[in-house]
Amino acid sequence: MAAEIVNPRSDSDTDTGTQNASDEPFDPAFALHRGGKMAVQATVPVRDKDDLSLAYTPGVAKVCSAIAERPELVYDYTWKSQVVAVVTDGTAVLGLGDIGPEASLPVMEGKAILFKQFGGVDAVPIALATTDTDEIIDTVVRLAPSFGGVNLEDISAPRCFEIERRLQERLDIPVFHDDQHGTAIVTLAALRNAAKLTGRGLGDLRAVISGAGAAGVAIAKFLLEAGIGDVAVADRKGVVSRDREDLTPVKRELAELTNKAGLSGSLESALAGADVFIGVSGGTVPEPAVASMAPGSFVFAMANPNPEVHPEIAHKYAAVVATGRSDFPNQINNVLAFPGIFAGALQVRASRITEGMKIAAAEALAGVVGDELAADYVIPSPFDERVAPAVTAAVAAAARAEGVARR
Amino acid sequence: MAAEIVNPRSDSDTDTGTQNASDEPFDPAFALHRGGKMAVQATVPVRDKDDLSLAYTPGVAKVCSAIAERPELVYDYTWKSQVVAVVTDGTAVLGLGDIGPEASLPVMEGKAILFKQFGGVDAVPIALATTDTDEIIDTVVRLAPSFGGVNLEDISAPRCFEIERRLQERLDIPVFHDDQHGTAIVTLAALRNAAKLTGRGLGDLRAVISGAGAAGVAIAKFLLEAGIGDVAVADRKGVVSRDREDLTPVKRELAELTNKAGLSGSLESALAGADVFIGVSGGTVPEPAVASMAPGSFVFAMANPNPEVHPEIAHKYAAVVATGRSDFPNQINNVLAFPGIFAGALQVRASRITEGMKIAAAEALAGVVGDELAADYVIPSPFDERVAPAVTAAVAAAARAEGVARR
Repeated sequence: MAAEIVNPRSDSDTDTGTQNASDEPFDPAFALHRGGKMAVQATVPVRDKDDLSLAYTPGVAKVCSAIAERPELVYDYTWKSQVVAVVTDGTAVLGLGDIGPEASLPVMEGKAILFKQFGGVDAVPIALATTDTDEIIDTVVRLAPSFGGVNLEDISAPRCFEIERRLQERLDIPVFHDDQHGTAIVTLAALRNAAKLTGRGLGDLRAVISGAGAAGVAIAKFLLEAGIGDVAVADRKGVVSRDREDLTPVKRELAELTNKAGLSGSLESALAGADVFIGVSGGTVPEPAVASMAPGSFVFAMANPNPEVHPEIAHKYAAVVATGRSDFPNQINNVLAFPGIFAGALQVRASRITEGMKIAAAEALAGVVGDELAADYVIPSPFDERVAPAVTAAVAAAARAEGVARR
Repeated sequence: MAAEIVNPRSDSDTDTGTQNASDEPFDPAFALHRGGKMAVQATVPVRDKDDLSLAYTPGVAKVCSAIAERPELVYDYTWKSQVVAVVTDGTAVLGLGDIGPEASLPVMEGKAILFKQFGGVDAVPIALATTDTDEIIDTVVRLAPSFGGVNLEDISAPRCFEIERRLQERLDIPVFHDDQHGTAIVTLAALRNAAKLTGRGLGDLRAVISGAGAAGVAIAKFLLEAGIGDVAVADRKGVVSRDREDLTPVKRELAELTNKAGLSGSLESALAGADVFIGVSGGTVPEPAVASMAPGSFVFAMANPNPEVHPEIAHKYAAVVATGRSDFPNQINNVLAFPGIFAGALQVRASRITEGMKIAAAEALAGVVGDELAADYVIPSPFDERVAPAVTAAVAAAARAEGVARR
């Protein structure tokens, strides 16, 4: 499924400027990024008059007329069926924060090539010159005819929640904020396998999430959806609980949904006796708090580049340890989910991505590990070629089962 | 400069649906369009952890930070430097009129692959779900950080004039409405060569344009810019002249600029004694009107698929005949201009496309014909490989000369 990598500019570089080469930082990332990381290619020939008369005028007019008459044919005769807009406003880029649309483009291009490489999905970076919620929504609605799906990316909380919800209401194509749901899906997959490995069900587990941003909120809701015993979320001021009076609307909703145990106070105090730690905050958890967790605990310390708990410390107490880093085992990486999620949704022309499709993706992802399940292997590698096909098939089947597929 | 054509879906087609194949019209254009005509490709490898850590996190963060600090670096390290948005609202598509954004997509994809094939420029189809002037402008302004240029396409007059002007005022990247300026540039190139062939200067010529839409208005203004003797424009009601009281603001401006001879009345009457006929209307010009033109006239009947004057008729009276069709000599086709125009503008990171750059493009295009100049060869073939490099170089040089180049 992975596309072949070619460099179309290697033979045809008309770039005359090497002015910037002299002051380019000595870092392989800069050299690799020069000229960008992606290109467009024709998939039909345009070599002579006859080709041109089919791919362009006059032949193209018949195709246009057919779509004007039967709008659903746009999926058959254009790349809408396979292209996703990767939309950002540049406000929450990696750990860098609000760096603006231009500076976010290398991440969006990176995302686009991962879509292609892992899911066979075409993707176009769209970094917007606005951070206004209404303007972002209106802009994406106007772009929607050209795309088969919208992947929202690196938009800061809490605006990201409203933007996603309102776009889902207005559009009949999948809208998916990867920082929320991609992370939640991969986390659930790892958690399912960790539970399986230690002979427990999700219902037996009490989890504590550090971080109440896009990822933390989405993980909490998704774990509840999947049937976790209890989950509490902590922000910088401590556990989100009903008795707090400083909560935003999103956190107030979270206080209603989560924390059955009625915990309050610090993250550290909430960890006492907890079965699962999920870090999406970037803070640090002191060793005694990790030590206070229940026996056989799971520590998923996903902050990059510095995990909330270093794996060496975590291993002293936990049965399963995962991070967001590629240089430790059990890397919880969104690339395990989003390419297959969109590939599956596009394959059946789904009108949206349902909870059932996300659960199916997590189960398929967990299933790839199969009999090889071990403490240092609860989640597959991003380079495991079985991953994207498994997720794609599961998501497509779930879309059909849930009645959101158009074919 | 032409990119290699590949079909990335031939080996990896996960498309399960052939439901529509049975009722697909028996026409090669439909078969060719199935699945769309373009794709995205990675130009850097993402084969293993090390690749991923350079092209994506953590390596990409350094590149993002560098751009956040020095915004102009976005041109060095992303595809912004080479990608154009092909933007339409689907209101004036080919001869089909207002068919909406989805139905216009095959044309925009076609345009995108011509950009790539002929100019080495990446292009992305953006068909908007709005026809409101202000909304189109706001949307394109918000998209602009992701693109190095904007090609407006198939937007109906008179909105297209205001949309282009206001976008040019608000953006620091080239904004170019191809239906206006592409057509005007290629027409001027053909006219220069026709004049040269018959030993005249542009100043010796009086032209009559049939059609006062996007192309007609732009051609009239551009020919005046280039020094034509006189030009009159006719719409359905006859020659646009100062004594008419039914003129839109755009046509009122045209009445001030054109028609020094003070003609009024019908197109046919205006052709009596005229040196040049330029048809961009789709109507029909009766043979007696063609016969009434001055000796040694030029007939450029560019309506598709039916020229305003059939070449066989035109040849009875005219010294040079051109059409918009590929099956007659002297095809006036926008593809001769837009790929090189944008390639040249992008190469020097021009902030806009000036009149001087457009004139330079027309001269370069005319120059490709060189010593082979003949009545049936006043303009090169779209498949002449010398065209795009010549236009690109001329446009880049003109941008530098006019002070709009950023490198």
